[in-house]
Amino acid sequence: MIIPVKWSDEGVLMLDQRLLPTEEKWLTLKTYNDVADGIRDMVVRGAPAIGVSAAYGIALGAKNFVGMAMTDFEDEIDYICEVLGKTRPTAVNLFWAIDRMKRTFAKAKAEGKSVSEIKQILLEDSKAIHEEDIESQRLIAQFGGELIENDSVVLTHCNAGALATGGVWGTALGVIRGAINQGKTVSVIADETRPYLQGARLTAWELDQDDIPVTLITDNMSGHIMKKGGVQAVVVGSDRIAANGDVANKIGTYMVAVLAKRHNIPFYVAAPLSTVDLNCPTGEEIPIEERDIREITHLKDIRLAPEGISVSNYAFDVTPNDLVTAIITEKGVARAPYTESLRKQFED
Amino acid sequence: MIIPVKWSDEGVLMLDQRLLPTEEKWLTLKTYNDVADGIRDMVVRGAPAIGVSAAYGIALGAKNFVGMAMTDFEDEIDYICEVLGKTRPTAVNLFWAIDRMKRTFAKAKAEGKSVSEIKQILLEDSKAIHEEDIESQRLIAQFGGELIENDSVVLTHCNAGALATGGVWGTALGVIRGAINQGKTVSVIADETRPYLQGARLTAWELDQDDIPVTLITDNMSGHIMKKGGVQAVVVGSDRIAANGDVANKIGTYMVAVLAKRHNIPFYVAAPLSTVDLNCPTGEEIPIEERDIREITHLKDIRLAPEGISVSNYAFDVTPNDLVTAIITEKGVARAPYTESLRKQFED
Repeated sequence: MIIPVKWSDEGVLMLDQRLLPTEEKWLTLKTYNDVADGIRDMVVRGAPAIGVSAAYGIALGAKNFVGMAMTDFEDEIDYICEVLGKTRPTAVNLFWAIDRMKRTFAKAKAEGKSVSEIKQILLEDSKAIHEEDIESQRLIAQFGGELIENDSVVLTHCNAGALATGGVWGTALGVIRGAINQGKTVSVIADETRPYLQGARLTAWELDQDDIPVTLITDNMSGHIMKKGGVQAVVVGSDRIAANGDVANKIGTYMVAVLAKRHNIPFYVAAPLSTVDLNCPTGEEIPIEERDIREITHLKDIRLAPEGISVSNYAFDVTPNDLVTAIITEKGVARAPYTESLRKQFED
Repeated sequence: MIIPVKWSDEGVLMLDQRLLPTEEKWLTLKTYNDVADGIRDMVVRGAPAIGVSAAYGIALGAKNFVGMAMTDFEDEIDYICEVLGKTRPTAVNLFWAIDRMKRTFAKAKAEGKSVSEIKQILLEDSKAIHEEDIESQRLIAQFGGELIENDSVVLTHCNAGALATGGVWGTALGVIRGAINQGKTVSVIADETRPYLQGARLTAWELDQDDIPVTLITDNMSGHIMKKGGVQAVVVGSDRIAANGDVANKIGTYMVAVLAKRHNIPFYVAAPLSTVDLNCPTGEEIPIEERDIREITHLKDIRLAPEGISVSNYAFDVTPNDLVTAIITEKGVARAPYTESLRKQFED
């Protein structure tokens, strides 16, 4: 059972995903700045996992606050939230978790709680966020598993597994685990997911740990395999879903969705409702992170491309809602038109 | 001016493309077995370059033959052709060059030439194959250049440049060089082309050598960039074109073609007629090479994926003719229906 982020009395524990699959090393992050660095440097990644980590970061920063004055404490919490909010721009779960922790703070303060009481309340709420995230995935696994047919090969892109979330199930890999729990035979094709190789390093590792059969391919191979009839469904996670059902996810997701459409293969997106951003009307408004070009030009110290050339490194893309067969959340399976079906899930 | 394969009195000279872009090293291949290894191990790659190399390999094997008896010489040539024919299965130029050299041998033998005269005739024909290849590309560059509009960004996949051919122009990159020679402003987006990184290592290097502006991206990024309007044309090479215009090319080409279609971007294939296989009615009949999975699981000695998982490594895919806007050969621009237009080019 993989849980990539944990609270401990010594600080926030994170499995260093940069070292997988060759090394399993846990880091103990003792300050909120360490947690922010961990998110920015991709010790932990994946939208739900980033949300859980940010909540723990705030609880940790609150715990480490030295002082008695509520105004100073409030300033510190605001500053911590600002630092954490600047780590990565695309995953909305980050901002969702920060907002929730801010509201928890404001409510406790309004109720006249002391600094030390609020520290405890923030810690409890961060743990609740983590537990709720795991429970959401359990439900996503159940609802999504029902969409997968027996004897399916399911293609997934990037890692939307236990490693990308609070743990245990994962979102896209949760759907696969859910189908298997329902007694179905499912095998997985994992795109390697350049440049950061989340598919090769993380998804392949995570599925192998659970003895779920997985075949690794390069990102440019899925079209060929779909054409040969080798894929029955695609399931991916998401970093942010707009109100109209446009889906931001790891770069390359859009290509997979276009190919799935051409081959009449269902394209499913699995994500907790905390990934749905009703304030974002369409995918056009979702900010797309661009990362260090060294992720493409180098692998560790090996140079893969000539010096001095131009390089683009978009970390995400947006899949328009017309390519999305269904969005699976902890509330059930939403289908087009998403503007109505997603809003309804929030109201339920 | 890049010429990746050359004849010399010491043997066949090959620029070791496995070491680019960090090292420019020439190998001197002294036997036909060395040439076969060079093709198999991808010292040289690219369909036209493989054809030229195979021709030189036969000339080299003939030169090295020790003996006077014509029957022994003929057996040796047959065996050399068999060895070279087993190096790589997809590029038809390999078999085209072997067949042409065999016909040259048969004609010379029928004319009563001696062993030593035939050695010289085979060498001259291999040099002619090389020169004709460069001339074909010059014409492809001219015809194809006219299809590229001024101020275009042209996306290319893999390396179909001077490095992939007899040299100087290249096929897909020949079209780009042709457009630039015609006074147009053109910049290039190069897919890195996993797993062998021909785009990052070779196309980026080759264009940079010629001061042609190039932006490197990962293979999974082209959809996002097309969606933003950042690509005006796609040009790729080919390893084999079926009689109906189905195009085998580097794995991932099919994905780019599907995306180009969705975004109404013209998708051009540039290749000499020696790449067109009229004996192959459709792309279904083209054998697709599968290569060592270590190309995907490792980069040099760095392990990228867990041990023991399943991996697929298809080296090529087939793009159906309905996604191909035009095929550019040394005879001009062929358009659908390709069964007629390609056959007509052979008759001209």
